[in-house]
Amino acid sequence: MADPWQECMDYAVTLARKAGEIIRGALKEEISVMTKSSPVDLVTETDQKVENFIISLIKEKYPSHSFIGEESVAAGEGSILTDNPTWIIDPIDGTTNFVHRFPFVAVSIGFVVNKKIEFGIVYSCIEDKMYTARKGKGAFCNGQKLQVSGQEDITKSLLVTELGSNRDPETVKIILSNMERLLSIPIHGIRAVGTAAVNMCLVATGGADAYYEMGIHCWDMAGAGIIITEAGGVLLDVSGGPFDLMSRRIIAASSRAIGERIAKELQIIPLKRDDATN
Amino acid sequence: MADPWQECMDYAVTLARKAGEIIRGALKEEISVMTKSSPVDLVTETDQKVENFIISLIKEKYPSHSFIGEESVAAGEGSILTDNPTWIIDPIDGTTNFVHRFPFVAVSIGFVVNKKIEFGIVYSCIEDKMYTARKGKGAFCNGQKLQVSGQEDITKSLLVTELGSNRDPETVKIILSNMERLLSIPIHGIRAVGTAAVNMCLVATGGADAYYEMGIHCWDMAGAGIIITEAGGVLLDVSGGPFDLMSRRIIAASSRAIGERIAKELQIIPLKRDDATN
Repeated sequence: MADPWQECMDYAVTLARKAGEIIRGALKEEISVMTKSSPVDLVTETDQKVENFIISLIKEKYPSHSFIGEESVAAGEGSILTDNPTWIIDPIDGTTNFVHRFPFVAVSIGFVVNKKIEFGIVYSCIEDKMYTARKGKGAFCNGQKLQVSGQEDITKSLLVTELGSNRDPETVKIILSNMERLLSIPIHGIRAVGTAAVNMCLVATGGADAYYEMGIHCWDMAGAGIIITEAGGVLLDVSGGPFDLMSRRIIAASSRAIGERIAKELQIIPLKRDDATN
Repeated sequence: MADPWQECMDYAVTLARKAGEIIRGALKEEISVMTKSSPVDLVTETDQKVENFIISLIKEKYPSHSFIGEESVAAGEGSILTDNPTWIIDPIDGTTNFVHRFPFVAVSIGFVVNKKIEFGIVYSCIEDKMYTARKGKGAFCNGQKLQVSGQEDITKSLLVTELGSNRDPETVKIILSNMERLLSIPIHGIRAVGTAAVNMCLVATGGADAYYEMGIHCWDMAGAGIIITEAGGVLLDVSGGPFDLMSRRIIAASSRAIGERIAKELQIIPLKRDDATN
C-alpha cells in the first residue's frame, strides 16, 4: 500500500526549504523586534510572514487539514489537537537567535494524524541542515541516516537544554537548580544552542545524549520529536511518564535509562497546557 | 616595513587547518577518553597527538620560540609567559564536545610577543570556519571581515558562557547564581556551545554580545582574544579592570558598556593563576 502521507512530507520539505530562504534573506536586512509574553519573548515580522507563507500554501493543497502555528496561536487562534490531519508549525524556532543572528534558526513542521506524529521536518536554515523523519522509516539529516548515541550512563552524558524566556524569579530558580542537580551527579556537561528543535536534532545525531525542557510548546516539539524516536531515541514526560505533545514539557533521550535518570532530578515547573481551554 | 610576524601567522593557519584534518579523521574512529583534574575534565590521545604535531612543526621552523600548550602543561611543563615570542596552543578546545561529537571543536593558536597578542587563529574544524586576526589588521572568518554587534544595552543582549568542568559544589553555585543575576536584569538569553574559543568567535561575528567565564586558561583565550579586539570588541577582567591573559578569567564584549555591566553582576571564583609558581 502506498504511504498516504508521503506526498505531504515531500511538500513539507519543499516548503521548509523555501521558508529557510526567506529567513536567510531577512537576516541580511534590518530586523524589527516586538515582544510577546515578556520583554525577552521576542517576535519579528519574519515569524509571521514565514508562518503565513507555509500555512497558505498547505491550505491551497490540503484545504481539509487543520493547523496549529505559533504565530496564529499568538494571534488568538486555538491550539486544540483533534484527530484530523494537523500541521504543527514553528516558522522560526530560535527567534532570539534570529534577532541576534546567532547561527541556529530552524523551521519546524510536524504532521499529526489521530494525535500521532506521522512525520517531522526541522530545517536549520543557516547551517543548511535538513532533518527529516517519517514514522517507521528512520531519521535523516541531508540524506544521511541518524542514530542516537544509545548512552545509558548518565555520568558519561552531555545534555542540552535552555534557560528559556520566562524571567519569573521562581521559574528561573527551578531551571537553575535542576541544572545544579544534574551537574552534580556528575554529568559531562550541558549545552544550549537556543532552539528546542535544533537541540533535539543534536540528540538525534548522537552529538548529545538527552534534551529536556519545560515551558516550550507543541510547535517546538512536533517536528523534532519524531526525528528523535526514528533515530532510536525515546520521548518521556519530565515526570518520567509518557510524553504528551500538548503538555509543554519533554525529555528526549538517547535511551530510556538516561531519560528516567534525568526525570528523577527534575523539579517540575507548573505550566498551562497548550490545549487548555481557559 | 614588512610585518615581522606575518610569516608565522601564515604558518599557523596552515598548521591549524592540518590539525583540523587530524581531528576530523579521529572523529570517525573510536575515541578513548581519559580524565585530568576531575571525572568530567576529559582528554584524549588526539589532544596530545595534535599538540605534538603543531609544536614539533613550529619548533623546526622557529627553534628559538617559546611554547605554552594545554597538554604540555598537563604533562608538567611550565606556563610562565616571558617576552620571548610565544605560541600558546590549545590543540582541541572543546574536548568534551569532541568526545561526544557535538559539532563545535576548535584548534586555537595565539602568538604573543612582549606579553602582547600579535595574532590569533581559531579553526572550528567541524564547521570548517577559519577565524583569524592580526594586530591592527582586523578579524576575519573564512576571509570575511568580522565586526562585533556594538550593542551597549544589556537588556537587549545575548550572552555566551559555559557551566565548566569544575564540579565543586561551591563553584557550581557561583556559576549558576551569576547566570541568575544576569538573566534577571533581564537579558535576552544565554547560550553555551561548549568551547571558549568558538563562543568568543561568535561574539566577534556579532552573533552574541558578550562572553564571560572564570576557570579557563590562557590557551582558551589567546587565539580568540585578538579576534574579539580586532572585530571591534573589548577584553576585560571579570572585575571590570584590565584583562590579564594569565588570570584564567575574561569578559569579551561587543562594547565596554556591556562588559562593565556584566562585571557588576559577577561574583568572583577564586582561582590559581596560569603562571602561579607553586
